[in-house]
Amino acid sequence: MDVFFNPKTVAIIGASEKPKFGIGTTTYLLNSKFKTYPVNINSDTIFGHKAYKSVKDIPDRIDLAIIIVSNEFVLQSIKDCVEKEVKGIIIESAGFAETGTGKYIKIQNKIETIAKESKIRIIGPNCIGVTNFHNEFTTSDMDFEQAIKGDIAVIAQSGVLGNVFIDWANSQGIGFSKSMTIGNKVDVDEVDLLEYLNTDPETKVISLYLEGTKRGKALKEALGKMTKPVFILKNGRSDIGTRAVKSHTGSIAGNDKIYDALFNQFPNVFRVDNFYELFNIAQVFATQPLLRGENVAIVTGSGSLGALACDEIEKQGLKLANLEQTTIEKIKSVIPNWVSIGGTIDLGPSMFQTFIPSIKAIFQDNNADCILYIFSVPRVPLQRMASYALEGIRAQFTALKQSAEKFKKPCIIVCFGSRWVFDFVSEAATHSELKLIIPIMTRINQAIKAFKMMYEYAKSEKN
Amino acid sequence: MDVFFNPKTVAIIGASEKPKFGIGTTTYLLNSKFKTYPVNINSDTIFGHKAYKSVKDIPDRIDLAIIIVSNEFVLQSIKDCVEKEVKGIIIESAGFAETGTGKYIKIQNKIETIAKESKIRIIGPNCIGVTNFHNEFTTSDMDFEQAIKGDIAVIAQSGVLGNVFIDWANSQGIGFSKSMTIGNKVDVDEVDLLEYLNTDPETKVISLYLEGTKRGKALKEALGKMTKPVFILKNGRSDIGTRAVKSHTGSIAGNDKIYDALFNQFPNVFRVDNFYELFNIAQVFATQPLLRGENVAIVTGSGSLGALACDEIEKQGLKLANLEQTTIEKIKSVIPNWVSIGGTIDLGPSMFQTFIPSIKAIFQDNNADCILYIFSVPRVPLQRMASYALEGIRAQFTALKQSAEKFKKPCIIVCFGSRWVFDFVSEAATHSELKLIIPIMTRINQAIKAFKMMYEYAKSEKN
Repeated sequence: MDVFFNPKTVAIIGASEKPKFGIGTTTYLLNSKFKTYPVNINSDTIFGHKAYKSVKDIPDRIDLAIIIVSNEFVLQSIKDCVEKEVKGIIIESAGFAETGTGKYIKIQNKIETIAKESKIRIIGPNCIGVTNFHNEFTTSDMDFEQAIKGDIAVIAQSGVLGNVFIDWANSQGIGFSKSMTIGNKVDVDEVDLLEYLNTDPETKVISLYLEGTKRGKALKEALGKMTKPVFILKNGRSDIGTRAVKSHTGSIAGNDKIYDALFNQFPNVFRVDNFYELFNIAQVFATQPLLRGENVAIVTGSGSLGALACDEIEKQGLKLANLEQTTIEKIKSVIPNWVSIGGTIDLGPSMFQTFIPSIKAIFQDNNADCILYIFSVPRVPLQRMASYALEGIRAQFTALKQSAEKFKKPCIIVCFGSRWVFDFVSEAATHSELKLIIPIMTRINQAIKAFKMMYEYAKSEKN
Repeated sequence: MDVFFNPKTVAIIGASEKPKFGIGTTTYLLNSKFKTYPVNINSDTIFGHKAYKSVKDIPDRIDLAIIIVSNEFVLQSIKDCVEKEVKGIIIESAGFAETGTGKYIKIQNKIETIAKESKIRIIGPNCIGVTNFHNEFTTSDMDFEQAIKGDIAVIAQSGVLGNVFIDWANSQGIGFSKSMTIGNKVDVDEVDLLEYLNTDPETKVISLYLEGTKRGKALKEALGKMTKPVFILKNGRSDIGTRAVKSHTGSIAGNDKIYDALFNQFPNVFRVDNFYELFNIAQVFATQPLLRGENVAIVTGSGSLGALACDEIEKQGLKLANLEQTTIEKIKSVIPNWVSIGGTIDLGPSMFQTFIPSIKAIFQDNNADCILYIFSVPRVPLQRMASYALEGIRAQFTALKQSAEKFKKPCIIVCFGSRWVFDFVSEAATHSELKLIIPIMTRINQAIKAFKMMYEYAKSEKN
């Protein structure tokens, strides 16, 4: 499977200078450290590189072929790859079983047979292939200048997970190890990739988007063997959703309740409800220490957001931390008389004078198992403060990280307001020299859900 | 009530040059078109303006007094305002009933008595007052350079709704008429403001964040008389949330089911689940024509996101539009053979060639009552395309707006990916000379929920 993520030689079948699907991959790979050969039946050169009429003409062994020709020409390209004895193929072209048209279903079936009868592993068709964030190999449009390296691997049937959501996640500070989109899955599927990622040293947590599986039993076995947390988003809960899935990747979504029952068997497998959760919650597992109890302490600058978090804690079946009297006394000794702390620690506009001693006391408290910090300072006063007290604000986040590191308790920041505020908090939180990452989200319910899943996960661990 | 939103003369009691709460309001108002007098017992001037020891010393009638002194001094300031016969007071200072301390509860009670016995209307304490986006009067930190004027009014108990969420909403293209935060509500409450806004010509839709009401019967009557849609977010669904609310604004959240029952009586009152819905759904009502049927047509660049939307349509009890055969034929005549349209119109990467004829056909279709456009083009290829085909992309959004205007059907864009993509779409959608606004969101479930609420609303209308 490694040939997909670290090929020594690559052929791009259908490489073109025309501004269409695949041009980004072509220009990137031709100028990369990965030795890349363009194949194009009509051109002698592609962006100044010699082009070959067929993959068979390339005077080199080929590890990986990326196929981006139109659907009618895919089968011949694959036959050429078989003759050439390439090791892996990624078919990005669409227009197969998902069209529902007999002719194209038949072509897909033929490709499937070739995959079975040869040693070649095939990803796709109808996908955008893979990205390896650590060695910067990609078969899709990836901007490595903005991409963040991390510990989360993404397996997805859908292309949007390979670029649109990666791009979003990177803007939230979430980093990845590998991503792989598998489309119609003629050969390589979620089972193969789960097994591969379970032993991948660069991957700690796996996020899987699934439209349906053809190998229920094998999936069950693979999930049972996973030693890493797996987050799964599965579409097709409804009848009309199921039909939509069929016309997307030709998958049979199946009875949704069976999937629920399957996923529920494994304490390290979590079903999530949307794409944002798929990444935000994975990030908590990838970066935070294990949660050992159910008591959530809340530090907030807004009483209403604190109250909202309390509603969510009760909904998720966790508990609001009942802080020790000594903690309350420590906090009371630093806050002005107009600040009201009851249950949640709502520091209000006193935040900038009282945060550091308060957060230290809370992390130290035996009744607090994890900490939710709700940041809700409005942009205009924050900009004003930052103009003369930037170091003071940064010091608060350093104190937060120091406490988190010292007491090994999971912490999540939920940040509200404009992007400027989010970026400011993000920068301030990463500014300290501590490498520790504290996840930043924009939804309280996701943060509490993450704590809940961590708690369930920790309870199930033998250690 | 108009004195709060358009005062001719303003006194700021507790105005100070120190960088603390209130400084933004002070500097803004002193340099605004609203005649403003600073009151400070210790200074002769505030930012070059003559300061008065007491509001009573000001040689002018005062329409509105803004009180930002610390809690201990609020009562005396109010007594001075009574003597001065100011018309309205906004008490921003915190530290009253919400602290749970007898001494401060008593002060709040005394203020309440003064409000009852005098003609003065009082907003607060424990709030950040009001903003009028149209005449640019504000008692909080508002950045009018970035704020957007619109038709949505916000009533909230909590300060974050007056700045943090307004700031967020503005970055999403959502505009406001007025916002008002009412904190502990010694006098002016949600009932007064609903009545006021129902006749306010600048307000079409009202978003209300409530922690509890002291006047259940009056609230019911006021809601019954509303001729505009009202969206309500109420915290305190849970026991611990209820306690948190009490320590925030001293409100009694009450039995949550009673509120559900109350809101359910009125077809123009909708309870929402979070702050984002409170604004995003209000924006749909404020900008879109009425929805007359339950059939949602979906145009998407991503099959998986289309399938997710189908799940959501079924969950909300709407229907996926069963497009007319002529519409399907029109679309099939422009899409390549590898594009698969079944139920949802998933144009995939063909989007940029096929969108305009497809969207025109869909709006024209009698089986489509509203249109969800899921935009999921990755940033890198979009940036590349924009560099040579910007006008072509903009033309697509112009075509969308032209169709929306011609056929008077509600439309929502849900945009996925990085901020650059969101901003690009937002700019492209507003670039056309048509003034029509098409709401842009980042969550499919919110869009479908908005359609569902619109459908319920339309069914209940007599016309």
